[in-house]
Amino acid sequence: MKTGISVEEARRFVLEAATPLPAEIVPAAKALGRVLAESVHSGRTLPPADCSAMDGYAVRAEDLAGASEDAPRGLPVVFEVAAGGCGERALRPGEAARIFTGAPVPSGADTVVRQEDTDPEGERVGIRIAPPRGQHVRAAGEAVRRGDLVLQPGTRIGPAEIGMLASLGRTLVHVHRRPRVAIASGGDELVEPDGDPSGGRIVSSNSYSLAAQCEEAGATTSNLGIARDTREDLARTLRAGLSADLLVSSAGVSVGDHDHVRPVLEELGGQMRFWGVQMKPGYPLAFGRIGERGAWVFGLPGNPVSAMVTFEQFVRPVLLRMGGHEACFRPVVSAVLAEPLIKKAGRQHFVRVHLKRDGEQILATSTGDQGSGVLRSMSLAQGLLVFPAAATKLAAGDVVRVQVLDEAFFWTREPLA
Amino acid sequence: MKTGISVEEARRFVLEAATPLPAEIVPAAKALGRVLAESVHSGRTLPPADCSAMDGYAVRAEDLAGASEDAPRGLPVVFEVAAGGCGERALRPGEAARIFTGAPVPSGADTVVRQEDTDPEGERVGIRIAPPRGQHVRAAGEAVRRGDLVLQPGTRIGPAEIGMLASLGRTLVHVHRRPRVAIASGGDELVEPDGDPSGGRIVSSNSYSLAAQCEEAGATTSNLGIARDTREDLARTLRAGLSADLLVSSAGVSVGDHDHVRPVLEELGGQMRFWGVQMKPGYPLAFGRIGERGAWVFGLPGNPVSAMVTFEQFVRPVLLRMGGHEACFRPVVSAVLAEPLIKKAGRQHFVRVHLKRDGEQILATSTGDQGSGVLRSMSLAQGLLVFPAAATKLAAGDVVRVQVLDEAFFWTREPLA
Repeated sequence: MKTGISVEEARRFVLEAATPLPAEIVPAAKALGRVLAESVHSGRTLPPADCSAMDGYAVRAEDLAGASEDAPRGLPVVFEVAAGGCGERALRPGEAARIFTGAPVPSGADTVVRQEDTDPEGERVGIRIAPPRGQHVRAAGEAVRRGDLVLQPGTRIGPAEIGMLASLGRTLVHVHRRPRVAIASGGDELVEPDGDPSGGRIVSSNSYSLAAQCEEAGATTSNLGIARDTREDLARTLRAGLSADLLVSSAGVSVGDHDHVRPVLEELGGQMRFWGVQMKPGYPLAFGRIGERGAWVFGLPGNPVSAMVTFEQFVRPVLLRMGGHEACFRPVVSAVLAEPLIKKAGRQHFVRVHLKRDGEQILATSTGDQGSGVLRSMSLAQGLLVFPAAATKLAAGDVVRVQVLDEAFFWTREPLA
Repeated sequence: MKTGISVEEARRFVLEAATPLPAEIVPAAKALGRVLAESVHSGRTLPPADCSAMDGYAVRAEDLAGASEDAPRGLPVVFEVAAGGCGERALRPGEAARIFTGAPVPSGADTVVRQEDTDPEGERVGIRIAPPRGQHVRAAGEAVRRGDLVLQPGTRIGPAEIGMLASLGRTLVHVHRRPRVAIASGGDELVEPDGDPSGGRIVSSNSYSLAAQCEEAGATTSNLGIARDTREDLARTLRAGLSADLLVSSAGVSVGDHDHVRPVLEELGGQMRFWGVQMKPGYPLAFGRIGERGAWVFGLPGNPVSAMVTFEQFVRPVLLRMGGHEACFRPVVSAVLAEPLIKKAGRQHFVRVHLKRDGEQILATSTGDQGSGVLRSMSLAQGLLVFPAAATKLAAGDVVRVQVLDEAFFWTREPLA
């Protein structure tokens, strides 16, 4: 087991662990945000036949050679084709058929004249243009041909893909299974949110913020509750999570002499890969696995901000990759720092910052108190400024890199602001 | 009723209609992505008492004046305080207490020395520094004080807010209700995705892509099914959706003579506000309301791409605003056009484009066939390029504005790429 490794090294360790989970079959209409685990080939040709792209008249282009505004050509309207209908018979030379958008072009016809270019006169129609052959006809197979590869494995399923699957008659689809995460916390001082907070007890809030972070990353969660500060109770609690894909434990705020997590994980067959990452907040981070093929385990620090920041850096990418996503890191933007920042060399800091657009620039300002117990600073932050390990100061005006946590930061109040 | 209005005017019409829905109470742990409809004040002070930020020893700073590496001061360790515990008694002058992170600082003590600065010697501890008073003590109320306003109405609830609510003992929370959308489609040529597509019938795929778009915008949906091309059947189908907040109907591909939607809506008490927007794809768009206080109604075009693009421009912002969101438009980025584009003046075009990062620039390339029946072009597109109504050409190299549809476009494969 390595200790005190860099953020980059820790990231390599966890990403080696992250492979897409096996496929499961789900209703296509419920697959929004999932990642396709199959190649989708079309079983249909769409449109299934040549069809009209306009409301108007199906004709033979050669019958209209020379027609114009000044010399309209009159044709008899011999039948009508509605969408979902079909022509009564083939169109003969010198005839027109009334047709509506989406309706199949009758055999014999090769062109559609839109109604704006015509003058109906009882059972005949006057046509004021000489259309090129094929005009306003959507050719069979224009959208897709039977056998075409229409969606690749690894595609993230959005509304367009759901519409495409429906149009092909695919009501079920193979997608990567969602990761299942079991979440535990530990500490004698902890109570559930509806528990009695007297006597200095505090709420096990990490189980709730971490579950929401898992949900954002497409995972399902189960809350194993609060383990007391004994090896026995911790072992009992964690054992209930061994069938998950990922077991996330956040210590109580108590670490040190009272930290039983590592020995208990070893007792359960766990092998720690690393412990301790050169970052702030979040040094006391452990990562390993139960056995050769069991659940991956993250032991996160107990401070609320440290738990959330270490989740962002390491757990979220693992969950996204398990779900089949290739792009598994938050957006990173360049921003102009509004104020100087200093720190000691050695650890990479993640500074909670408020982001504000200023023309084409983005301004980053610290949210204030960076204490790792002050969850409000995470609530106020749109991003985490990356203050590199070796650096000791950043000046106002420096261009810095910021991980954007709040996806709504990119949304706008005005449509094209 | 206005007809043939501009995109901007249509947007003003629909946004006037959009007001946040009333509040409902939901479990805080299930409120991810919802918008707060109350002010949250803290009922607690956190931390509830002065507590230790480190594992180490609680002391009185004045007892250590002059202590140093070369002249450590020895103190008796008279008791231990764990997190969740409390001191046995007040600390007296000249004494130290073993203490762990998060544990309350015993009365009499004012400072914590971290264990790295000490040498335990049996029942005593040698202390190698002279700490400033208050060091490593988290003051009661550092995170939040009883009565503080911690979350404002209008806050979008993310993982940090869920953690904060938990830490305050708030298990239930007032949020804006989700919009309820009823979705209908109409056309004799349409079948459900599991239906028989023979005889030129096509799948009512719009109901599925639109439902997924609603879900992305935080709405719940019900699918009213396919109305046949008669006024009676359409009226029967739409009537089932009148109790929704929003009724979305997409025509079959048939419009024109077979378009019963507008007269039927009027028969049901609907008042159309506008019909027809100067855009492509998507001209045949209708918007109105059933009665003075009833469901808002969108009649979307039947072509799959037109339905999705008009939803993006008009329905999505309305749904987000109903859900309480202030920022209700997609991200807009500046991109460099990779190829020339031409069109006629008059309508604003939304060109489906592929987006690719190229250093600090973003390159936009048309996804190819812009036919409004080619849903694959929406699946391939990361964005919609806005080609203004009055413009007739854009040159390769022009800087254009693009609405980003695919939120994963911002995600990265490398953590700080």
